[in-house]
Amino acid sequence: MSGNSSITLRRARRDDVATIIAMLADDRLGSGREQLEDPLPSSYYKAFETLDRDPNIQLMVAEEGGLVVGCLQLCILPGLSSQGASRALIEDVRVASHRRSRGIGEQLVQWAVAEARAKGCRLVELLTHATRVDAQRFYTRLGLKASHVGMTVRF
Amino acid sequence: MSGNSSITLRRARRDDVATIIAMLADDRLGSGREQLEDPLPSSYYKAFETLDRDPNIQLMVAEEGGLVVGCLQLCILPGLSSQGASRALIEDVRVASHRRSRGIGEQLVQWAVAEARAKGCRLVELLTHATRVDAQRFYTRLGLKASHVGMTVRF
Repeated sequence: MSGNSSITLRRARRDDVATIIAMLADDRLGSGREQLEDPLPSSYYKAFETLDRDPNIQLMVAEEGGLVVGCLQLCILPGLSSQGASRALIEDVRVASHRRSRGIGEQLVQWAVAEARAKGCRLVELLTHATRVDAQRFYTRLGLKASHVGMTVRF
Repeated sequence: MSGNSSITLRRARRDDVATIIAMLADDRLGSGREQLEDPLPSSYYKAFETLDRDPNIQLMVAEEGGLVVGCLQLCILPGLSSQGASRALIEDVRVASHRRSRGIGEQLVQWAVAEARAKGCRLVELLTHATRVDAQRFYTRLGLKASHVGMTVRF
């Protein structure tokens, strides 16, 4: 769908799910939230099927040499504000730990921003944990601003 | 759908759109983004139709004495992280300026959190502008934490 050097972006498939979960789990904050077992808990596949048929959602992976090395989920959501323009929410951005600092995350986020714009969005938003200072610097470099406070509640 | 004292929450209807836009526009940040004309630009109605048939989205209004005095949009989104649990995004929370500090916003947000929980979400998230200190205090009181930085780009 998009690519430079040896990175290709494409929609995630069911057989990418385990690799994506491994990336989500290989993270200071994610490790406590995921259950990385073989076989994976069926809840992951059920969620994949739900999001894969959702027309608002694109779960993308970055592939390098036939291996999945990054992911990003883009949701495009209708709403009344900003004269009825849709907005985009970026979530679950991850790059495999051994493949960082090579522009993979940048390519994923730039794709998402361009895709949101092409779909008529006037706003792209994301939440990044307050302690992820490197991530905030990364997104700032890509043109996003730390304009908001991201508030959450977990059950 | 829910109520205490004289406030009732219900799904927004097409004939609420002008009142909702008036609330979105009656705001320091929103005033520059909306176009409050009579008749309203058709983009608002088009967006309403799109979100109204979207199974992920509930645009709610608070009604008091037959008048719409508040609104909130809840999106419930599938995703792989947190073992495939859905997450909820709250957007466009507004209370009519002459009806603030009477628990209307609280009722809307509490409904959204309960609804997200009932739908199996493990996370509720929202972005509030960094300058909206009162809003941050309000959400904190309702159990949300300022755990994240909300990053945005507008086109």
